[in-house]
Amino acid sequence: MILSALLTSVGINLCLCFLFFVLYSILRKQPGNITVYAPRLVAEGETQQRGQFHLESLLPTAGWVKRAWQPSEEELLSDVGLDAVVFMRIFTFSLKVFTVGGIVGIFVLLPVNYLGDQLSHDISDLASKSLDSFSISNVTDGSNWLWIHFCAAYLFTGVVCYLLYYEYRYISAKRIAYFYSSKPQPHQFTILVRGVPVPSGSTCSETVESFFTENHPSTYLSLSVVHRSSKLQGLISDAEKLYRRIAHLKLKNHTPQEFKRDGFLGLFGRKVDVLDYYEKKLEDLQDNLRLEQSSLAGKEVPAAFVSFKSRLGAAVALHIQQGVKPTEWLTERAPEPQDVHWPFFSASYTKSWICKLVVFIACVSLTILFLIPVVLVQGLTNLDQLETWFPFLESILDLTVVSQVITGYLPSLILQMFLSFVPPIMIMFSSIQGYISHSRIEKSACIKVLWFTIWNIFFANVLSGSALYQVNIFLEPKEIPSVLAEAVPGQASFFIAYVVTSGWTSLSSSELFRLTPLLRSYFKRVFTGKAGDEFEVPSIPYHSVIPKILFFGLLGVTYFFLAPLILPFLLVYYCMGYIIYRNQLLNVFAPKYETGGKLWPIVHYSTIFSLVLMHVIAIGIFGLKKVPLAASLIVPLPVLTLLFNEYCQNRFLPIFKAYPQECLVKKDREDLNEPSIAEFYKELVTAYKGPTLMPIQYPGSSDGRNSPLLLHAAQV
Amino acid sequence: MILSALLTSVGINLCLCFLFFVLYSILRKQPGNITVYAPRLVAEGETQQRGQFHLESLLPTAGWVKRAWQPSEEELLSDVGLDAVVFMRIFTFSLKVFTVGGIVGIFVLLPVNYLGDQLSHDISDLASKSLDSFSISNVTDGSNWLWIHFCAAYLFTGVVCYLLYYEYRYISAKRIAYFYSSKPQPHQFTILVRGVPVPSGSTCSETVESFFTENHPSTYLSLSVVHRSSKLQGLISDAEKLYRRIAHLKLKNHTPQEFKRDGFLGLFGRKVDVLDYYEKKLEDLQDNLRLEQSSLAGKEVPAAFVSFKSRLGAAVALHIQQGVKPTEWLTERAPEPQDVHWPFFSASYTKSWICKLVVFIACVSLTILFLIPVVLVQGLTNLDQLETWFPFLESILDLTVVSQVITGYLPSLILQMFLSFVPPIMIMFSSIQGYISHSRIEKSACIKVLWFTIWNIFFANVLSGSALYQVNIFLEPKEIPSVLAEAVPGQASFFIAYVVTSGWTSLSSSELFRLTPLLRSYFKRVFTGKAGDEFEVPSIPYHSVIPKILFFGLLGVTYFFLAPLILPFLLVYYCMGYIIYRNQLLNVFAPKYETGGKLWPIVHYSTIFSLVLMHVIAIGIFGLKKVPLAASLIVPLPVLTLLFNEYCQNRFLPIFKAYPQECLVKKDREDLNEPSIAEFYKELVTAYKGPTLMPIQYPGSSDGRNSPLLLHAAQV
Repeated sequence: MILSALLTSVGINLCLCFLFFVLYSILRKQPGNITVYAPRLVAEGETQQRGQFHLESLLPTAGWVKRAWQPSEEELLSDVGLDAVVFMRIFTFSLKVFTVGGIVGIFVLLPVNYLGDQLSHDISDLASKSLDSFSISNVTDGSNWLWIHFCAAYLFTGVVCYLLYYEYRYISAKRIAYFYSSKPQPHQFTILVRGVPVPSGSTCSETVESFFTENHPSTYLSLSVVHRSSKLQGLISDAEKLYRRIAHLKLKNHTPQEFKRDGFLGLFGRKVDVLDYYEKKLEDLQDNLRLEQSSLAGKEVPAAFVSFKSRLGAAVALHIQQGVKPTEWLTERAPEPQDVHWPFFSASYTKSWICKLVVFIACVSLTILFLIPVVLVQGLTNLDQLETWFPFLESILDLTVVSQVITGYLPSLILQMFLSFVPPIMIMFSSIQGYISHSRIEKSACIKVLWFTIWNIFFANVLSGSALYQVNIFLEPKEIPSVLAEAVPGQASFFIAYVVTSGWTSLSSSELFRLTPLLRSYFKRVFTGKAGDEFEVPSIPYHSVIPKILFFGLLGVTYFFLAPLILPFLLVYYCMGYIIYRNQLLNVFAPKYETGGKLWPIVHYSTIFSLVLMHVIAIGIFGLKKVPLAASLIVPLPVLTLLFNEYCQNRFLPIFKAYPQECLVKKDREDLNEPSIAEFYKELVTAYKGPTLMPIQYPGSSDGRNSPLLLHAAQV
Repeated sequence: MILSALLTSVGINLCLCFLFFVLYSILRKQPGNITVYAPRLVAEGETQQRGQFHLESLLPTAGWVKRAWQPSEEELLSDVGLDAVVFMRIFTFSLKVFTVGGIVGIFVLLPVNYLGDQLSHDISDLASKSLDSFSISNVTDGSNWLWIHFCAAYLFTGVVCYLLYYEYRYISAKRIAYFYSSKPQPHQFTILVRGVPVPSGSTCSETVESFFTENHPSTYLSLSVVHRSSKLQGLISDAEKLYRRIAHLKLKNHTPQEFKRDGFLGLFGRKVDVLDYYEKKLEDLQDNLRLEQSSLAGKEVPAAFVSFKSRLGAAVALHIQQGVKPTEWLTERAPEPQDVHWPFFSASYTKSWICKLVVFIACVSLTILFLIPVVLVQGLTNLDQLETWFPFLESILDLTVVSQVITGYLPSLILQMFLSFVPPIMIMFSSIQGYISHSRIEKSACIKVLWFTIWNIFFANVLSGSALYQVNIFLEPKEIPSVLAEAVPGQASFFIAYVVTSGWTSLSSSELFRLTPLLRSYFKRVFTGKAGDEFEVPSIPYHSVIPKILFFGLLGVTYFFLAPLILPFLLVYYCMGYIIYRNQLLNVFAPKYETGGKLWPIVHYSTIFSLVLMHVIAIGIFGLKKVPLAASLIVPLPVLTLLFNEYCQNRFLPIFKAYPQECLVKKDREDLNEPSIAEFYKELVTAYKGPTLMPIQYPGSSDGRNSPLLLHAAQV
C-alpha cells in the first residue's frame, strides 16, 4: 500500500465521519427523534418528549460535544454506575498509552525508519512511497539505529505497566468504595444453588429448606426454587403483547373493521371486529396460562435462589463447599434479579458440562470457517491475483483510485461486515454454555469475540500474508518469534488501513450514531401510524464494543515500534470514541445490570498479551535485522512483564472476584442500624421469584380475571 | 541386552534378596535389636524390651510375613492413620493394574511380539536373544497383529481408569469417615494468618486480636503470634542435650574425670569433673536463654495462629478473603501443632514469593546438572564405547559375566546411588520455599522428586539413547510422538534391567531392612557403652518412597504394550514391597502427622500422566509401524482419558482440599454435647505457642529456675 492510497482512505473516512457528525448533530435536535437520541432521559422523565419546531434546529451545532465533556467521573458513577466509568477509563487509559507511544513513535522512531535505506529508494515521490518506508522494515540490517527501537520497547513497556498498575489500583479502590456506598441489594444476600439432590418423595424446596436450616441456622432467610417455565414465559409475553395492542386500540377509541384470515390454513377470510377478536384471543391465552401454571409445581428444576440475613452469610455459603459430594449443592453468586437469564436454566451438572464442551467445539469450528472470508479478503490486497481470477476487471482495476479503494478500503470493510455477525453468535454460544446471568453471558461473549478477533483478524491475516495460513507455527514454539517477525511488519500497511477504515467505520456505525434505531422508528411511524410512544432504552453492547477497542489496543501496542504511523490514527479514533460514548452514556444507554467493574481484568490481560506479543516479535525482528545482542537482551522483558502480571493478579484480582470479610462485616453492621432493613428482607423473599411467578398487572384490562390469576400463580 | 544378561541380573538380585530376607528374619528376633526392629511397639509399651535368648532365634522364620498380612484395613486405620492406609492402597492399586496388564501382556502380547520377524532371527539360541525380540519392535511393520496391541491399549486404559475411579471414590469416602470419627483436634479449629499489617506503635498480637474480634465476634477464640526464634531454639536444643547428658551421668552414679579441651582455641586441656563442667555449662546456657527470651517480644513475625470456637469459624476465615488488600491477612490452614515447621518462618509475602522463584531456578539447575551422571551411566551400556575410552579394560570386558553385570546391573545401581542424594536436596528446597508444615514440605518434595525422576531417568535415558539429549523435541510438540516412538522401545531393555535391579535394590535398601539403624545402634553400644535405651521411632519417608513407587508405575503403564516382559518383574516387586511395608508400618514406623490421605491425588495424576504418555507413544509406534489408521484411532484415547481426569478432579478433588460445610456443622454440633470441649478449648489456646515458648520441664534438674523461666516466657 502506498501513501496516496492511505490518504485516499483517510479522505473518504473523514468525509463520511463529517457527514455522520453533521447528521447526528441535526437529527438529535428534532423533537420527534427524542426517543431515539435520548431514550434514557425520556425514560427518567428528565426531558419533555415534544418541543416546538425551530428553524435553527436544522443547523448542526457542537454543543453536545461540550456537554458530553462536562460531567465529572463522580457524576458519571452515580448516574450510570461503575461499569460505565470503567468503560470510559478504557478510553482514557488507551489515550494515555498511545500519547506516550505516539510521541516516541512519531518524533523518534518514524524519522529513524524513514532515513533507513533497506528498501529500494528509487521513487522520489513521497505520495507513491510504500507505507513500508515508514516501518522498521526500512532500517538497514545491523544498523546501530536499531538500538533506538530497542530502548523504545523497554521504555514503552515500562510506561504501559505503570499505567496498568495505576488503573488496576484505582479501579480496585473504586470497586470497594462503590460497595461501601451501596444500599442493601438482593444479590448481595443471595446465592444460587444448583445440583440439589432431591430425594424421591420430596420436593426441591423442601430439600433446600431443610439443608440450609440445618447448616446455616442463624443466617438462612428464604428460598425461591427455579421452575422450567419457558412455555409459560412464551404465553405471558404473547398475552402482554396482545394486551398492549388492545390498550392501544381502546386509546384511539376506534374499532376498525379489518380483513382477518382465519379458518382452515387461513384461506378463508372474514371481516371481524378487531377489538373483539383480540379480546377473544386474550381469553384463550389466559385459559392456556391457567393450565400451564397449574402444572408448574411439577416442573421444578433442582436449583434454587437462597437468600440470607447477612452478606457474610451468603459469602460463607458461596465460598465453602456445601455438600459432601462436590458435584451436588453447587453454589454460585446470584446475579441481580433483573440480570437473571431465565429462559435457559440448565440445572444439571452433567448437562452444563456437556454444553460447555459443545460450545467449545462450536467456537473452534466457527473460527476455522471464518478463515474463508479472511482468505478471500486477503486476496483483494493482491490486485494481480484478482486480475488473474477475473480478467474482465483488468481495465477497471488499472485506474489508480479504484485500485487504491480496493486495496486500502474494501478489505477491511468486508471484514467488518463479516465480523458484525460474530458478536450475536458468541452471545448465543455463551447463553447455551449455561451462564445464568446476562452480565456473565456478556462477559464471556466479550472474551470469545476478543480472541476470535485476535486470531482471525490478526494472526490469520499476518500468517496468510506470508504463506498460506501457517497454523503449524504454534506447534513449533521456538519458531514463533522469527515467523512472526517475518510476517508481521509486512502486514503493517494492511493494519494501518484497517485502523483508518474500521476504526472510523465502527465509530460511525449506525448503532452508535443511532441511525438504525432512527430508521426503525421512522418506519414504524409511517407503516403502523403509531406516534413512537413505545421505545426502549438500550444498554451498551459491551461484548461487541470492548473487543473492538481492545483489538485496536493490541494493534497499537504491537505495531508501536514496528510501524509507528499507526499511532496517530489510533489516537484520533480513541479520542472520538471517548466523546461519542460519553454523550450517549449520558443520553442513550442505561445500564441493565452492574458488575462493579468486573470488565477491567479483561482489559489488563489483553494489554499484557499485547505487550508480550510485541516482545516476541521484537526478538524475531532484532534477530532478522542481524542485531542478535539486542534480540537476546529483549528476552528479560517478557519475563518481567509476566512477573508483573503475576503480581497484579495476586494484588488486585481477588478484589474483583469477591468482597473481603472486612467489607462484608462492616456493611452488615451498618444494616443493623438501618430502620428499613426489615422492609428490605420482605422484598428479598420475593426478589428471585422469576418473571413467570411475578404478579403482572394489566390496569384497565378488559378481562378482570387477568391479574388475580397471575397473582394467584405467584403464590403457588 | 540379551536374555542371559537379564537372567544373570535376576539371579544376583534373587540371591541378594534372599540373603536380606534371611538376615532380617534372624536379626529382628534378637532381643537386643528390638529398639531397631520394633521401635514403635517399644514406644507404645506394647512389647517388653528384653526377652530371654533362645537358640531358635538364630533360625530364620517367616511368621512375620503372616503377621504382616493379618491386620485388616480398619485395624491399620485406627493404628497408624489414614495416610498409611492410602500408602498401602498404592501398592494394592498397582498390583491390580499390573495383574490385568500382566495377564494380557504375557499371554497375548508377548507371543505376538516373539512370533514377529522384524528383527533378525539368525540366533536360534534363546539365551542369546536380545530382549527386543520380546518387545513390539519385533512385530512386522504393517502387520495386522498390531491391531491386537491397539485393542490392548484401549482395554488397559479402560481398566486403569475404572480402578482409578474406584480408588478415588473409596479414599474420598474414607477421608470423610475419618473426619467424622476424629476427636476435636487443634488444627481443625485453627488457621494461620500471614501478612498482618502491623501499624507503627502497635504489636502484631494487638492488631490480630482487634481484627478478629471485630470481624469474627462470635467465633474467635485466641491467638498465638509467631516469633523469630531460631537462635532461642538452638539454645534450647543445646540445653536439652546437656540436660540429658547430665541425667545420664547421674543415673550411672559415677563422675569420671575426663580430659577436656578448653581455653584459647581449645589448645590447653585440663582435667575437670565432667558433671561439674556440664552443670556449669548448663547454667551459662540458661543465662543466655533468659537474655534471648527477654528480647523475644521484639522479634514478632507478622504472622499468627488464630483459633476459633468452631471448625466452621476457622473454615470461614480460611475461605473468605479477610482484608481489603489481598496481599494482607492471608489465611491458610494450620497444620497439626507437632507438624509446624518452626525453624523457617518466612512471613513476608514478597520474601516467600522470591524464595519460590529461587527454588524453581535451583530445581531446574539441579535437573540439568544431574544429566552428567545420567549420560555417564548411559555410556556404560555401550561397552564398545567403554573399551575405546579405557583400552586396558578390553580383556576383562570380554568376559561374558563381567559384560553382563556391567550392562545389566551396574548402570541402574550407579543411577540409584546418585538418585539417593536427590530426596534430601528436594526436602531442603521445599523447606526454603516457605511451607510451614513438615507434611506440606514432604508432599511438595514428593512431587519434585517424582518429576525429577521422570525427567532425568525416563526422558533423559530415552532421549540420550537415540540421540544426545534432544531437549528440543519439547519445543516441537507435534514431533513428540514419533521421536518418543523411535526412542522408547529401544530403551526397553535398559528399563527392564532397571526394574529388576533398582526395584529390588530399593526394596532391600538398608533403611527398609533396618540395616543402617542396626549398625548405628551397634556402634553406639560399642563405642559409648550405652545400652541402646535411646531410640527414635522413624516416620515413613514418603517423599523418597512414593516417587519410586510411582516411577515404577509409570514404567509399567508405559511399557505395558511395548515390552510386556517388564510386568512380571513389577508384579513381584510390588508384592514384596506390600509385605515389607505392611510389616514395618506395624512395628517400625509411626506417623508424625496425618494429612488424611492427601497423597492420593498425586498418585491419580501420575497414573493419568503415564496413560497419556503411553497413548502418545502408541500414536508414534503405530505410525512408524505403518498402521496409520490405528495411529489415528488411538487419538481419542488420550482425549477421553483427560476428560475422565477432568471429571475426577471435579468429583473428588474438592474433598481433599477442604471439608464441606455439611461435615463441619455436623461435627461442631456433636461438640456441643461433648463434656470435654471446655477442656479442649483450654488446650487449644496454648497448642500453637511454639516449642520455644512451651514450658519445658527438666525433672530433677540441678537448676530450679529453669522451668519457671520457660513457663514465664510462655505467658509473654
